[in-house]
Amino acid sequence: MEETLEARLKEELVSTEEIFQGKIIKVQVDTVQLPDGKVAKREVVRHPGAVVILPLTDQGEVVMVRQYRHATGEILLELPAGKRDAGEEPLTCARRELEEETGFRAAKWRVLFSFYTSPGFCDELLYLVLAKGLQKGEAHPDDGEFIDAVTMPLDQVRQMALAGEFKDAKTVLGVLACSALDEKC
Amino acid sequence: MEETLEARLKEELVSTEEIFQGKIIKVQVDTVQLPDGKVAKREVVRHPGAVVILPLTDQGEVVMVRQYRHATGEILLELPAGKRDAGEEPLTCARRELEEETGFRAAKWRVLFSFYTSPGFCDELLYLVLAKGLQKGEAHPDDGEFIDAVTMPLDQVRQMALAGEFKDAKTVLGVLACSALDEKC
Repeated sequence: MEETLEARLKEELVSTEEIFQGKIIKVQVDTVQLPDGKVAKREVVRHPGAVVILPLTDQGEVVMVRQYRHATGEILLELPAGKRDAGEEPLTCARRELEEETGFRAAKWRVLFSFYTSPGFCDELLYLVLAKGLQKGEAHPDDGEFIDAVTMPLDQVRQMALAGEFKDAKTVLGVLACSALDEKC
Repeated sequence: MEETLEARLKEELVSTEEIFQGKIIKVQVDTVQLPDGKVAKREVVRHPGAVVILPLTDQGEVVMVRQYRHATGEILLELPAGKRDAGEEPLTCARRELEEETGFRAAKWRVLFSFYTSPGFCDELLYLVLAKGLQKGEAHPDDGEFIDAVTMPLDQVRQMALAGEFKDAKTVLGVLACSALDEKC
C-alpha cells in the first residue's frame, strides 16, 4: 500500500539550480520527475527551521511579543519564536529565544509537535514548545531586533485567536493547541 | 500611543535588491532603517497568497488531500488549499481549488479569518474558508498535480492534529479553529 502511494504521488529530483544563498534562506529551482514521467520545475525556499514557544505563567497568562515584520509591513502580536542555529536542538533554541525576547526563564519545558509553515514551497519546520514555571528577568534581544513583551490571559488570547485578531499562523495554532490540550497546559 | 508603538518598532524601507522572479515566488533583499537609526538587511519572499479550505460534509466528515510536497520531501495529509490568481477573491479561489483537488462543490461558504504563514521572511497571507453543503463530483487537478482525496470524521482529524500527526501548519490551525468554533461548524 505504502509503495503504491509513493508510486502514485512521489516526485523524483532530477537537478537543482541554486539561485540565492542568503543569511537566513536559500532559494533553488529544482527539476523533478512527476509520477507520470513528465518533468516540472519546483521553486524551493530552504530555511533552517525554528521554534515557537507558548510561555504560560502560574497565573494562566501567555507571554507574547509585539514586533514589526518587514515582509508583511505590519506590527504583529505573536508567540515568541526564533530560528534554530545550525544543529541546535529545539529545546535549546526555545530556552535561548524566550529569554532573549522576553526575559523569561522557564522551569518546565515540553515539545508538543512540529509542522511545516508553508510546505508548498518551503521546508521551514517549526517546533511548538510549551514553557511553564516562568520567572521574569531582563530581555536582551539580538542586535537589530525591537520587541515589546506583552502578557495576557490565556482565555483572552484564545478568543482573539478565534476572532482572527492575530495574523500569524504559528500564534493561532499554538494558542488553539494549548487550549485544546488544556489538561496538560 | 499608536505613534509611539510605530516609532519604537517600525522599520523604514531604504532600498530593494531584486534577486529572483519565479512563477510563484519573488525574492528580494531589502535594506531597512531600524528604529534606532541603524540599517539592516531583510531577506523577503513575496508570495501571491492562498486559501485553505475546511470542507465539512453533512455527516461531519472533513475532506482532505494527500500529496507529495517536494520542498519537504514528504507525502503530507492536508486540508485542500491553493494559491490565489492575481486579483482573485479568496472565495472564488476556494471554490475553484476545492473542486479541482477533490471534486467537491459546496453550497455554503464562509471566510473565517486570514493569517501570515511565516511573517519573519514571507508575505504569504492565507485565508481560512469553511465549506459546507458538499456535493461530490469529479476532481480535475492542475497539470502536474497528483492528489488523493481522503475523507475522515472531524473528531478523528482533531485528535490527529493534537497528536502532531499532520505536519502542516494550515491543516492543524484550520482543524483546531473549526473544532473550537463548533457551534458554527
